[in-house]
Amino acid sequence: MNSDARDDGNEQSHLSLSGERFTAVYRLSGSASEAESRARAICLEQTVEFPDALIPSEAIRAQIVGEITAIAPCPIDDGNSGCEVGIRYPIETAGREFTQLLNVLFGNVALQPGIRLQRIELPPRLLQHYRGPRFGIAGLRQRLGVRHRPLLCTALKPMGLSPIELADLTYRLALGGIDLIKDDHGLSDQRFCPFDERVSRCAEAVARANQKTGRTSLYLPNVTAPADEIVPRAARARAQGAGGLLLCPGLTGLDSLRRLADDDQLALPLLSHPALLGGLSLGPNQGVAHGVLFGTLARLAGADATIFPSYGGRFAFSTTECREIATSARTPLKRLAPIWPVPAGGMRLEQVPELVRFYGHDSMLLIGGDLHVSPDLTARCRDFLTLVEQSAEQLSNH
Amino acid sequence: MNSDARDDGNEQSHLSLSGERFTAVYRLSGSASEAESRARAICLEQTVEFPDALIPSEAIRAQIVGEITAIAPCPIDDGNSGCEVGIRYPIETAGREFTQLLNVLFGNVALQPGIRLQRIELPPRLLQHYRGPRFGIAGLRQRLGVRHRPLLCTALKPMGLSPIELADLTYRLALGGIDLIKDDHGLSDQRFCPFDERVSRCAEAVARANQKTGRTSLYLPNVTAPADEIVPRAARARAQGAGGLLLCPGLTGLDSLRRLADDDQLALPLLSHPALLGGLSLGPNQGVAHGVLFGTLARLAGADATIFPSYGGRFAFSTTECREIATSARTPLKRLAPIWPVPAGGMRLEQVPELVRFYGHDSMLLIGGDLHVSPDLTARCRDFLTLVEQSAEQLSNH
Repeated sequence: MNSDARDDGNEQSHLSLSGERFTAVYRLSGSASEAESRARAICLEQTVEFPDALIPSEAIRAQIVGEITAIAPCPIDDGNSGCEVGIRYPIETAGREFTQLLNVLFGNVALQPGIRLQRIELPPRLLQHYRGPRFGIAGLRQRLGVRHRPLLCTALKPMGLSPIELADLTYRLALGGIDLIKDDHGLSDQRFCPFDERVSRCAEAVARANQKTGRTSLYLPNVTAPADEIVPRAARARAQGAGGLLLCPGLTGLDSLRRLADDDQLALPLLSHPALLGGLSLGPNQGVAHGVLFGTLARLAGADATIFPSYGGRFAFSTTECREIATSARTPLKRLAPIWPVPAGGMRLEQVPELVRFYGHDSMLLIGGDLHVSPDLTARCRDFLTLVEQSAEQLSNH
Repeated sequence: MNSDARDDGNEQSHLSLSGERFTAVYRLSGSASEAESRARAICLEQTVEFPDALIPSEAIRAQIVGEITAIAPCPIDDGNSGCEVGIRYPIETAGREFTQLLNVLFGNVALQPGIRLQRIELPPRLLQHYRGPRFGIAGLRQRLGVRHRPLLCTALKPMGLSPIELADLTYRLALGGIDLIKDDHGLSDQRFCPFDERVSRCAEAVARANQKTGRTSLYLPNVTAPADEIVPRAARARAQGAGGLLLCPGLTGLDSLRRLADDDQLALPLLSHPALLGGLSLGPNQGVAHGVLFGTLARLAGADATIFPSYGGRFAFSTTECREIATSARTPLKRLAPIWPVPAGGMRLEQVPELVRFYGHDSMLLIGGDLHVSPDLTARCRDFLTLVEQSAEQLSNH
């Protein structure tokens, strides 16, 4: 190729993209008069990352660069005004890769203040690359044999207990009727609680309890791990009888969740934990909106259930933010199964009726510490179950 | 085990940790009077994630829970006051895993507003699990044969060019004296620019230019990819002649960088790109301080060079933040090699003298678009090199 050819804007381009696009809606702080030039800058930043005037061909300008669809003023949570800006990107820029989709949606602009990824809209031709959740709400209900009520979830803790002690906890929690018993997300493979020993003992304990109760409780070990150990640990966990897996995609990368979800040999329900990831949701006008981060993206990555800090606990998410997450988790999204919103983070049993009213039947309540306030853990789990059943029944009658 | 045994605080515990601890220094917004109770909450949140009163044994309380080392008032960048709080965690809580170290340092508290991870201090017994950068400043100088001046780096763009066109660019950039020529981080494996074809053509082009110039330019393809494709792509890139690799750990997870750095078969210089990750650095009092995020953590993960948006470009990092990154990248950190700070993001050639004065000899200047303002790309690269050489000489004479 002649080394000057690319400077010729009229050259015959090899580019022939479909013309199909996906949409990101951003919220920009600042005045409407600045919004248009900032939106144009985003169109370049997230694609060619190149000055407009220097783009070497019209084909690239027309087919690769983002397009503004709409700019509309909107209020921002911090009380200031701002604008919502819709930008359409060619589906081919994201290819078939989740990492690259994230990059186009929010890679470089994550480094700029005053911009928040508010919503995304993905057409079927892009969504076809994502299998999404293997179980979702319906699949997990089927596996558990629980048809109508919200699910009960808890965490094995505190860190520092031995595998034998955690297995004993698991047994008592399952006996009390907890549906999903997950590792605390701080349990990895520490010497004082090695992964393999913990998993085999806790899986054995839950099986023993299930045999006694005739119910199905699942044990979900934490497979958040070094990049090359996630899949091997998941496979060993399955072999040892784990009923699902917990992963912190903020620590491992969101695509590690997708990798586990797409694994046909594994085929286990996946619970997503928000550690570190959640940092991207804070701030009224930066990062990624709660619904997108904990809802849409977790679902695209294949989570069957998405944990987030609920209002009313020891974190600071608002009811609006929590509702946004629950909606994004469950709203129809082409062939991607709806998933379980899992409010968590310091909730107490006395809040169960209110939480069930707020989150509805298709939610999973994760209560940890507050199950341990009574010496009889199993009895307290039964209280939790009764409260959920009663609250669900009340909800049905309204 | 008797199911009530764990409720007995005097039981003989299996825990016998070393007592060695690592330190995280957090900056909390708000008053000093609140700081102590918040610090105590963090000590629990990041370890046992359990109410203090319910911790089942004194051994766990003494050996697992974080300990406050100091609380001191400090100013916060937004003009308000706050406190710096030092917390020491047992090295065993983080085990030998980078994912779990991140989790203890900032996993759950990332979800709380008004807390920023400001500094970390890791003792040798924890650091021994991290090999860190394979090349760093000295290793990359040796590989390039460049002894004193700052390095020149650029990106292959814009997205939309074909592999043939990018290879042509590569050739001209290498001919002009650019030391490191990396893929734009938006180039992954799109149909219009497939990874394998791009890598083989660009690697061939840089080798051809090196033969002509007698110098060493390196081509660094972007291996940011789905979780199960990163290592295979990296291996193919090496086989095809890549001189290094680019990765966006914010998209793949930081531990994917560690995985590549530790790979003795691969053994290539690694350039870390801040896409998405950088979102955690924004906000005066949340997230992770610039020096920790782009400096210490990138270095722990094994990056040989860390890209960040410089002051004076199209992003909004301040000179203080940029200096903090450069310092963290290069300051002695036990056996972990110092690495290259790589200021980037819309810088122009005319800023080179000032940038060299600011960042010093051991820095890598990444200039993309501004190399393309002249029709003669190679001549402009030579100007870039001359400017860097002259600026470095001036720096030496002062």
